[in-house]
Amino acid sequence: MPIITLLTDFGIDDEYVGVMKGVILSINPSATIVDITHHIDPQDLIQAAYTIKSSYRYFPEGTVHIVVVDPGVGSNRAILALEMMGHIFLAPDNGVLTLLMDDGDIDSIIRVDNSSYFLEYVSRTFHGRDIFAPVGAHISMGVEIKKLGAQVKKRDLVHLPVQYPCISDNGELVGTIISIDRFGNLITNIDLKNLEEFCKAERVGPADTERLEIRIGKTEITGLSKNYESVRPQSPLAVIGSRGYLEIAVNCGNARNYFAAEKGDVVRVCFIN
Amino acid sequence: MPIITLLTDFGIDDEYVGVMKGVILSINPSATIVDITHHIDPQDLIQAAYTIKSSYRYFPEGTVHIVVVDPGVGSNRAILALEMMGHIFLAPDNGVLTLLMDDGDIDSIIRVDNSSYFLEYVSRTFHGRDIFAPVGAHISMGVEIKKLGAQVKKRDLVHLPVQYPCISDNGELVGTIISIDRFGNLITNIDLKNLEEFCKAERVGPADTERLEIRIGKTEITGLSKNYESVRPQSPLAVIGSRGYLEIAVNCGNARNYFAAEKGDVVRVCFIN
Amino acid sequence: MPIITLLTDFGIDDEYVGVMKGVILSINPSATIVDITHHIDPQDLIQAAYTIKSSYRYFPEGTVHIVVVDPGVGSNRAILALEMMGHIFLAPDNGVLTLLMDDGDIDSIIRVDNSSYFLEYVSRTFHGRDIFAPVGAHISMGVEIKKLGAQVKKRDLVHLPVQYPCISDNGELVGTIISIDRFGNLITNIDLKNLEEFCKAERVGPADTERLEIRIGKTEITGLSKNYESVRPQSPLAVIGSRGYLEIAVNCGNARNYFAAEKGDVVRVCFIN
Repeated sequence: MPIITLLTDFGIDDEYVGVMKGVILSINPSATIVDITHHIDPQDLIQAAYTIKSSYRYFPEGTVHIVVVDPGVGSNRAILALEMMGHIFLAPDNGVLTLLMDDGDIDSIIRVDNSSYFLEYVSRTFHGRDIFAPVGAHISMGVEIKKLGAQVKKRDLVHLPVQYPCISDNGELVGTIISIDRFGNLITNIDLKNLEEFCKAERVGPADTERLEIRIGKTEITGLSKNYESVRPQSPLAVIGSRGYLEIAVNCGNARNYFAAEKGDVVRVCFIN
Repeated sequence: MPIITLLTDFGIDDEYVGVMKGVILSINPSATIVDITHHIDPQDLIQAAYTIKSSYRYFPEGTVHIVVVDPGVGSNRAILALEMMGHIFLAPDNGVLTLLMDDGDIDSIIRVDNSSYFLEYVSRTFHGRDIFAPVGAHISMGVEIKKLGAQVKKRDLVHLPVQYPCISDNGELVGTIISIDRFGNLITNIDLKNLEEFCKAERVGPADTERLEIRIGKTEITGLSKNYESVRPQSPLAVIGSRGYLEIAVNCGNARNYFAAEKGDVVRVCFIN
Repeated sequence: MPIITLLTDFGIDDEYVGVMKGVILSINPSATIVDITHHIDPQDLIQAAYTIKSSYRYFPEGTVHIVVVDPGVGSNRAILALEMMGHIFLAPDNGVLTLLMDDGDIDSIIRVDNSSYFLEYVSRTFHGRDIFAPVGAHISMGVEIKKLGAQVKKRDLVHLPVQYPCISDNGELVGTIISIDRFGNLITNIDLKNLEEFCKAERVGPADTERLEIRIGKTEITGLSKNYESVRPQSPLAVIGSRGYLEIAVNCGNARNYFAAEKGDVVRVCFIN
């Protein structure tokens, strides 16, 4: 029961995702296909990069992850097969795997160009169907990725211009909102490790999170909450979310509306005395 | 091929649902996972309660139904495993199973707290991934629910404050709109049994449905239709819908827009002479 | 692993699709069910007809395709089982299979009325659950479609009033927008064959596509592009899309917004000297 996951910006209004599944099952009838999401904002590589990084580890080793957020479809951008941590990732060479590669050692990166694993007719506008789906299906059947093309080096890949959190001149840890979920929770790019290093830099114990102050717009939130219900209904809070990133939420409410927040907005963290 | 269904308010824009499936398949690679819906209005327990009640009986016995509409995630609310009618339900103890329990005899209710069936690290904000998914997967592998925790009694559960239809002082059967589907059909909480009891109370034969009058806003609809096409296009009608509840629809139109209706609006039924 | 595809206008907010899957799996536990889409605009038969035609060939032979866009549910419209090209289609007799039937020879058309393959209780408003799902499941188990009812002839079916592209008095090829995808790409009903025939009628070589001019609203697009990136960002282009139809797109942009376009809008093609 090899698993293939799909992560795209195709939406589900059109037949695109269904057709990819048809192609996969035509090659590997026993594949188990799981949608991670098809609602990446069109061509938002950063959001896609954080989403695959937050997802893959919950799948068993051997899973093939197909990521198709691909504004350059039909141009001469490369397609990559990346093997690391026991997982195989198939994606355009546009930086969508950049964040993931921080997670551990890379076993192999292949530039996929062996068209014997593609559909016979390859369109210019739908490589999801014509290349990614059949190649992913063949990998799930046991085809080794070295058969798909030549090895390439990490330094030769396209890298996303990722904005990591940084410490400002006045000693604040400055991050940004990278995504907003259905509940209106604001997910920042500040992770636990960033917070620990910041504590260390500020010579504050890691357990001292009640002295943390999180600033968004003109609002200040004091301390990290353990869960959404630890503040009064309709009150804002900060929490380490399930992805391991600092999130801003409103108990029984919607932080996106509460703060009129958008992706890319700045969030600042400091310590109060 | 054990079946696991998922019913949540997570939406499908984020990776949450996909990650739950990854966790399930990591434990039980041969599980068949079916989405009932992930578009319960955020934290709308009533809507979730009617949806699971309308769905489960169409799945084979032995199906595990995971319901995660869970505003209290990370607080000390309990998690329940309920066995009845040959199905197993896994849900927070917040009343989301209340309506279901009217359907028959309960075999067993367990308060789930045996963390050996959870993921190793349990976050405070995503029990869908860290508890519900792995516990559901283990049940689908044959783990008996009595191994998950101690037995609890129905009377000790949190119950939803369900508004059942009632008969008003002036002899009308009064219900409310509990959900509105994609076609704009207005689904009320008045079911066939309510109508039959009302007929009996009014001493009207159950076949006499052409004398029924359904009132919504300032509009009166006379009689129950057999199907949507039995009135002229763009005309309103009342029908016993596929869930067994009284529905108000507009043929080739949208009743939500026609009546400017919202969830919670009142619908009245009476008999005309 | 027999495959069953689902194509409906049910949306995924309600439990309708999940319940159909429950019915299918109750009958055929080893069915692989694939969603093509459930977001056909409510009761839009033309859009559904183009969508199934663009999808089915990517699935293996033997696949059962269930199409439920069915404004006449519960009336006396027939239900059809159509076998052609190695695939089996199950749909209401309302024209939704009309376009498909251009693709090749029909092996068999059956009017489905053998209720021994239906659910025991058939509602008036949800034949997707009560008829289409169980009949599709039985077919996927090997039930021959001739057991489902009597043979009917193609000429006795309801046919969609399809607007095929035509050549206007002033020698333009005139088509319409039949759907708009998530990226705002405008998909017309003009296919490659139409363009080739138009080239022939105009005595222009088929390779001479740079002399093609595509007119939408007051804008003229010259030539066919090979891919989206072949024009400058935010510029419009015309391309033969992945379905084989002429599409109008905007590189890194949204053609729907750019042209304020809607389904049904006219697109004209001519040759410039």
